[in-house]
Amino acid sequence: MNKLSDYSAHIEKVLRDIEYPGGVLTSLYEPISYAMQAGGKRIRPSLLLMAADSFGLKAEEAESAAVGIELFHNFTLLHDDVMDASDVRRGRPSVHARWDVNTAILSGDTMLTLATQAICRVPDSCLREVIDTFNRMAIRVYEGQRLDMDFETSEDVTLDDYLRMVADKTGALLGASARIGALIGGASEKDASRMEEYGMMLGLAFQIQDDWLDVFGDPSTFGKPIGGDINNNKKSYLLLSALSQEGPEAVAIREAMKFPAGPGKVTTVTRLFEKAGVSEKCRAAINSYSKKALAALKATSLSEEAREPFRLIVEKLTGRKK
Amino acid sequence: MNKLSDYSAHIEKVLRDIEYPGGVLTSLYEPISYAMQAGGKRIRPSLLLMAADSFGLKAEEAESAAVGIELFHNFTLLHDDVMDASDVRRGRPSVHARWDVNTAILSGDTMLTLATQAICRVPDSCLREVIDTFNRMAIRVYEGQRLDMDFETSEDVTLDDYLRMVADKTGALLGASARIGALIGGASEKDASRMEEYGMMLGLAFQIQDDWLDVFGDPSTFGKPIGGDINNNKKSYLLLSALSQEGPEAVAIREAMKFPAGPGKVTTVTRLFEKAGVSEKCRAAINSYSKKALAALKATSLSEEAREPFRLIVEKLTGRKK
Repeated sequence: MNKLSDYSAHIEKVLRDIEYPGGVLTSLYEPISYAMQAGGKRIRPSLLLMAADSFGLKAEEAESAAVGIELFHNFTLLHDDVMDASDVRRGRPSVHARWDVNTAILSGDTMLTLATQAICRVPDSCLREVIDTFNRMAIRVYEGQRLDMDFETSEDVTLDDYLRMVADKTGALLGASARIGALIGGASEKDASRMEEYGMMLGLAFQIQDDWLDVFGDPSTFGKPIGGDINNNKKSYLLLSALSQEGPEAVAIREAMKFPAGPGKVTTVTRLFEKAGVSEKCRAAINSYSKKALAALKATSLSEEAREPFRLIVEKLTGRKK
Repeated sequence: MNKLSDYSAHIEKVLRDIEYPGGVLTSLYEPISYAMQAGGKRIRPSLLLMAADSFGLKAEEAESAAVGIELFHNFTLLHDDVMDASDVRRGRPSVHARWDVNTAILSGDTMLTLATQAICRVPDSCLREVIDTFNRMAIRVYEGQRLDMDFETSEDVTLDDYLRMVADKTGALLGASARIGALIGGASEKDASRMEEYGMMLGLAFQIQDDWLDVFGDPSTFGKPIGGDINNNKKSYLLLSALSQEGPEAVAIREAMKFPAGPGKVTTVTRLFEKAGVSEKCRAAINSYSKKALAALKATSLSEEAREPFRLIVEKLTGRKK
């Protein structure tokens, strides 16, 4: 295996083979199984396995930790969907919509502990480093989610606030995935930190790209309705970047954001974004973080050949997929 | 220190001195600080410290794990209060009532990871044993909560079902507290298992006692309104024990449980419980589990003197405090 899609297919199979308790505990574990079967790119566990492989060629020892990372990611989706009142996830009812809020809370809690258990199934030699990385990352993810929720009612969110939030909410998990994989593979502390930096920068590029696709993406491949962020008054990179500028566009956008949600608002704000040059600013930011990811990767002791699949991830995740 | 109250006062001080992040993260950490300052007997962390002390006289090495156990316990309270829609906790608004449901979910999640971090601050020599015990316990607590919720809508809950639920929801945490303390103190695997058994049996005795106090307790010291379980149609030890008997009382209780909530229902059902001899059955069960706790304690390698404070906990927690 050396491509992301190979690892992704492998982890998909591992996830499919997990057997959850049944009987009287079906009401606790069935929603977990449901959430874990939802598919997706499995980018985080794949990155973990790939990192383990690159440093030590022992991906099987990293398999459980990879499952743990994916369990953690899906736990956050269960709880985030409750908090955001999102009833749809990957084209299916979210867990609280399919069952109820209590189920999403409790099965989510269970997933967090199952994730921690899976993460702990690593060799003794790296247990402390791995569990510490995992816990630190988890705290950052909660802090990022809290900031994201607080942004909704705040009128003075800056681009820097946004970047901190994304680093916590999205970057930390990709960074931890790469770092934990490297640690299990036996990487030096220096290499592990550089891989973490690679994942973090990849996460920032990826999230800004996601914000960009939400406005300028192709409706047939994006998976969510285009303009959702505009209609939800989300403090996206595009909006904050537009508002940080002086000039008539910023004033006009501020006014247009007060429109009621609907296609008219999306069209108007999108046009103003274009006039304000926001799309170009976004692409520049994505390029900048992609470059930082690649620079961190290059600073590791990995050979150019070993770095190649990681380089392809950056290209794939942040390429212009309009 | 050798009495529960000494340890309890000590851990209270440790908890009071914890500094939580502020600034933009106040909205995440203030509810945690609020929940952790609510007081209570601090029985679980005290038991952990006491066990560490008894086996190795190094309670300071166990302090962080004790904080972790209390963080975990309070995390479950935050989420349970959301699931049970309980707006009051220890005479104050619960977190979701004082803030909102999203805050209770997210600050609760944060507490679980903070708990895991604290639990991991133990010597390397026992890290794996301790974290494994903690995670296994956490899973049992969620399973117990799920069973408890499912009991609400089930008509055929047996006494055995109830005991399994209580062992998971209440016993496992007391058992893990005693076991983790023993492990940090350097106890043998045999001693650690016996201490866990002691905590588990203590938990069962304690919960049945709590059910008994809910009906027969002294309103001035119980802390909750007497008869709450009857009004909430809770499958308590008393109700399940009464219904498991043949005879006219069981039939009458089944009918009386259909009454609307109120003092009339409480009085009627209480009188029927008395006629059915349920109070005595309860006391017998409490005595039986207390004895099992003491037997497990006696089977450890601890001296009679070292066992004494643990014996006093059993006496104190399960004594007839009508």
